[in-house]
Amino acid sequence: MCYNIYREINLGGLLMNEVYLQNMDMEEAVEIFLGSCNVKMEVERIKTKEAQGRITARPVYSINSSPHFNAAAMDGIAVRSYETFGATRLNHKRLKKGINYMVVDTGDPLPEGFDAVIMVENLIRISDDEVEITEPAVPWQHVRPIGEDMAANELIIPTNHRITPVDIGAMLAGGVLEVEVYRVPRVGIIPTGTEIVKPGSELKPGDIVEFNSSIISGYVREWGGEPAVYEIVPDDRELLKKALERACDECDIVMTIAGSSAGREDYTSSIIEEMGRMLVHGVATKPAKPVILGLIQNKPFIGVPGYPVSCYFTLDNYLKPLLYKVNRQILPARSQIDAIVSHKLVSSLKEKEFVRIKLGKVGDKLIATSLNRGAGVIMSLVRADGILIIPKESEGYEAGEQVRVELLKDIREIEGTLVVIGSHDLLIDVLSDFLHARFPFYSLSSANVGSMGGIMALTRGECHLAPMHLLDFDTGEYNVSYIKKYLKDKRISLIKFVKRVQGFIVPKGNPKDIRNFTDLVRDDVTFVNRQRGAGTRLLLDYNLQKLGINPASIKGYEHEEYTHLQVAAQVASGAVDTGLGVKSAAQAFNLDFIPVGEEEYDLAIPTEFLEMDNVKKLLDIMRSDEFKREVDRLGGYDTSNIGTILHIT
Amino acid sequence: MCYNIYREINLGGLLMNEVYLQNMDMEEAVEIFLGSCNVKMEVERIKTKEAQGRITARPVYSINSSPHFNAAAMDGIAVRSYETFGATRLNHKRLKKGINYMVVDTGDPLPEGFDAVIMVENLIRISDDEVEITEPAVPWQHVRPIGEDMAANELIIPTNHRITPVDIGAMLAGGVLEVEVYRVPRVGIIPTGTEIVKPGSELKPGDIVEFNSSIISGYVREWGGEPAVYEIVPDDRELLKKALERACDECDIVMTIAGSSAGREDYTSSIIEEMGRMLVHGVATKPAKPVILGLIQNKPFIGVPGYPVSCYFTLDNYLKPLLYKVNRQILPARSQIDAIVSHKLVSSLKEKEFVRIKLGKVGDKLIATSLNRGAGVIMSLVRADGILIIPKESEGYEAGEQVRVELLKDIREIEGTLVVIGSHDLLIDVLSDFLHARFPFYSLSSANVGSMGGIMALTRGECHLAPMHLLDFDTGEYNVSYIKKYLKDKRISLIKFVKRVQGFIVPKGNPKDIRNFTDLVRDDVTFVNRQRGAGTRLLLDYNLQKLGINPASIKGYEHEEYTHLQVAAQVASGAVDTGLGVKSAAQAFNLDFIPVGEEEYDLAIPTEFLEMDNVKKLLDIMRSDEFKREVDRLGGYDTSNIGTILHIT
Repeated sequence: MCYNIYREINLGGLLMNEVYLQNMDMEEAVEIFLGSCNVKMEVERIKTKEAQGRITARPVYSINSSPHFNAAAMDGIAVRSYETFGATRLNHKRLKKGINYMVVDTGDPLPEGFDAVIMVENLIRISDDEVEITEPAVPWQHVRPIGEDMAANELIIPTNHRITPVDIGAMLAGGVLEVEVYRVPRVGIIPTGTEIVKPGSELKPGDIVEFNSSIISGYVREWGGEPAVYEIVPDDRELLKKALERACDECDIVMTIAGSSAGREDYTSSIIEEMGRMLVHGVATKPAKPVILGLIQNKPFIGVPGYPVSCYFTLDNYLKPLLYKVNRQILPARSQIDAIVSHKLVSSLKEKEFVRIKLGKVGDKLIATSLNRGAGVIMSLVRADGILIIPKESEGYEAGEQVRVELLKDIREIEGTLVVIGSHDLLIDVLSDFLHARFPFYSLSSANVGSMGGIMALTRGECHLAPMHLLDFDTGEYNVSYIKKYLKDKRISLIKFVKRVQGFIVPKGNPKDIRNFTDLVRDDVTFVNRQRGAGTRLLLDYNLQKLGINPASIKGYEHEEYTHLQVAAQVASGAVDTGLGVKSAAQAFNLDFIPVGEEEYDLAIPTEFLEMDNVKKLLDIMRSDEFKREVDRLGGYDTSNIGTILHIT
Repeated sequence: MCYNIYREINLGGLLMNEVYLQNMDMEEAVEIFLGSCNVKMEVERIKTKEAQGRITARPVYSINSSPHFNAAAMDGIAVRSYETFGATRLNHKRLKKGINYMVVDTGDPLPEGFDAVIMVENLIRISDDEVEITEPAVPWQHVRPIGEDMAANELIIPTNHRITPVDIGAMLAGGVLEVEVYRVPRVGIIPTGTEIVKPGSELKPGDIVEFNSSIISGYVREWGGEPAVYEIVPDDRELLKKALERACDECDIVMTIAGSSAGREDYTSSIIEEMGRMLVHGVATKPAKPVILGLIQNKPFIGVPGYPVSCYFTLDNYLKPLLYKVNRQILPARSQIDAIVSHKLVSSLKEKEFVRIKLGKVGDKLIATSLNRGAGVIMSLVRADGILIIPKESEGYEAGEQVRVELLKDIREIEGTLVVIGSHDLLIDVLSDFLHARFPFYSLSSANVGSMGGIMALTRGECHLAPMHLLDFDTGEYNVSYIKKYLKDKRISLIKFVKRVQGFIVPKGNPKDIRNFTDLVRDDVTFVNRQRGAGTRLLLDYNLQKLGINPASIKGYEHEEYTHLQVAAQVASGAVDTGLGVKSAAQAFNLDFIPVGEEEYDLAIPTEFLEMDNVKKLLDIMRSDEFKREVDRLGGYDTSNIGTILHIT
């Protein structure tokens, strides 16, 4: 019930209270929240050596001078300068050891009564205890004076300063062995929800694994706090209240992670009203709309929505500035970069939207492609190179428009990334890992949009490589005719990859006895399809057409998934009886596989990109025995032509 | 003996061997070193929850799908889509609970046999167990399919990936509870030198406090390593060899920190030749020239020069890229910014120089001022906002030239900083701390160049505030006439600060019985002076002139220090008998103070800057009772006019 305004409706056991969410601007919500939070941290005295990253609570003044003595700054002899006056090139002056000079090394204290050093290079040796000089010493020459680095009682670092390793060195040099710093703010994290289970639990349908607390803990540490994760609290008002009371006693900032079931936010909001003050409930952002910001027992409280992407942006939008404020530090700004939007991006006028973006440097263009925009898809954050913020008043962007993206990664990492758009196969994941494992500065990012989607990406110059398996219905040939038809204006080559077997993915033992395409129209068979433009979908439609089968007669024809693995997952769950896909996906889920035919799965590439170093490395990998062995292990592939290059257009 | 080519010279106990340092280009040194280092880290299996920041040693594939069941994506009812066909606005279709529908909340598993969800908002309630619908459900509408986030066996993160909190969340969602990562590289750090003592030791002349190992440890941690600091090894070849052997056994990378005394590098270099391979000895950089890069027992070895600034750049130039290489990560680049050089910067053609830079945004100009360029001045790193790299072939920069500076701080921190250039007083430190303590986004940076230096900085538009105490010999008035004379073309105001007492700083009990300026020429009195342009120096010269005293007759007149505290430190050490300075400096060192007169110490400011928010905040602080109390506590100041503003030109 995360993305709706609740309405009262009693639907036989489905009773929900009225909870009207606000739709406050994020900027206003941040201002109200930070303005109301006044976290005063206690001060503790710790060892200077252990103070890295801590914040000073008092100014740090040096205790001793550094150096604490006048020191020779060169190897040579210490002299009294007035005893050297009158020495010239023509009229040397002779000095006696122990009387007129003392031998000193760099760093040695200047002996009492001496006020200058003459470098060893400028001495003429007469005997073991006599030298001559050819010019006088200027007083205090080559002397490193007391306090050159710092005098005693000099300010080393002020209050509210985040201590660096260099600061620690300076404090130790100044004799400061202990330093007063603020205690690290403790952030209490309470996961809630009856359906929430710990990672590693045996999963029943409906169970949701609790991992948001680990994400929050990680960022709390990064942002200078100390996380404290509490036990999962089931949907029970009294238990939640008790948990909040305990967390408020033990922590400086408190958060709950809501689940997704209705009514939960109700508890939370009514408890906040009872124990403290609700400041904001509902912010005009997508995701992370149903956030709660408030105070409980005068401690800042954040009610985090349960979907992981909503959770992430709640942290980034509210917890991060709060922790920086508590630690009295400037909130670091992310680097930004201009990029070209690859697809039309429609966004609501009612919300500020945070779109996860994959960036790719293709030729001289930096292309921004939006990742899955669902709040539940944490992989969209794992894969993201940046965030595109679409303002509240904007309807979005047209394809080709220039936008500014906040970077989550080093731009050089993005520049080393091969952008792969097109048909999906598990081998793309394997290739991606092989590349990054052998060449850590190169990566491969893939978007699964089907073979035709890959062709379109090539026409727009948005990818380096387009995996495809497109059967020419007339010639029976794969891929080549499509490239000639759709990419005739470009110079495109085809990297031969694998032959692979397509077939029906079915449960172990093939209980519904599915043998061919005509079985799909049976009443007792439900199917899961691939999306339009996928080569596998074309294969299905080609066969249905040939056999004169009406797609509407197949139960589940409209049920589209985007990858072979997702098809296999549906079959494995028992939700459907079969789907069309590759053998390796069936094997990954320990399912059975009824082959229907072999096809050619290749990589199309603009010919000029064959000269790129990361493409060359990729080809080396594809042709390596180690990679072929891994492909064989997955099953259902023929690698005999792998790495052969055909120049097509 | 850090900055010289050693020459054989036997000077009565001063015996040095020939060690010719190389003068290799830094880029070449880095390439040779990194190219020769081949650190292979072991793999360990750790809990996913504890893997933040660690580097994957294997690809991580999901174990289960997420979600692992088809789930309702909305609150409402689950239906069989084919049972809803035919419903229209005019022709409602009635559904029965338990027969045609089941109530579901967001996140609930889709009951078996059901294939779509209708939102609660689109239902017409008839009774507790009957609803009507006005349009059919599209199959799989409002269903979050199995594997929407990730299917089982999907690649979550590849090998060589640095694990983020979001990655941890995704791995837990995918059922991955443990992950294989590389062991954290262990860096052994051996401080060496007979004169080196631990922080906190009772300091004798000649002792040098060992703090470099703390600096190194801090950066090792920041760069993804684990530091191991060994006991200090005195200058003894066998002990050093044993320490190196042990460190090589226990660590992946080994470093020694050399002291500054002659001959030590000899041990190190000959041990390296014996135990391994010397790759580089001496690099054409300033500081950090006498670095040693090599291999001992096939482990990378870095011989770090002992001066702290040399140490820092040795870490930054060699250890940092090495650790990033070992961890298979891209070396992050520092942000850069263009700034205007405030003073001529002369640099050698023979070396690449790393100049520590203080940046200040004065008006619309970003001004780069070099900090102390000595390799022994760690405060130059503490204070630095950035690094200016002067290439080997460059002679430096003229004042006013634009240069590119590598930023060490957030630019907004620099933009909030008040640049104070001029005369030194302890109150400037206090003011600096008060400002940053109350307004953490504002800072005050000060350069002590004397009152006339401050006037010059104002003429060039390089500072916000110039503290000064300039006596007009003719009128007896302070500051105003100088501003009128030197800054007549600008609009300058004077913020009245304090009246302060100047006098002779002398040891407790005034053993030499110094009472007035004529005592300075006595044979038994040595003096320490302030630099030319300092107000205190003007005060001295004014009085000497008035009394007809020849400066050359004062022992130590040429011995210049830059701050009151440094003058006091010289007196406190016993190296000199007296110097002229303020009372608070004498008090800071528990010295006696013989007043010679009161003077006015004020802050000149371009009038337009009075409107800046940080200047207003500074004025509020100056006028506050709390600040005045602190000034009174320091002693020797009169605050009766503090914060009064006079518009002068």
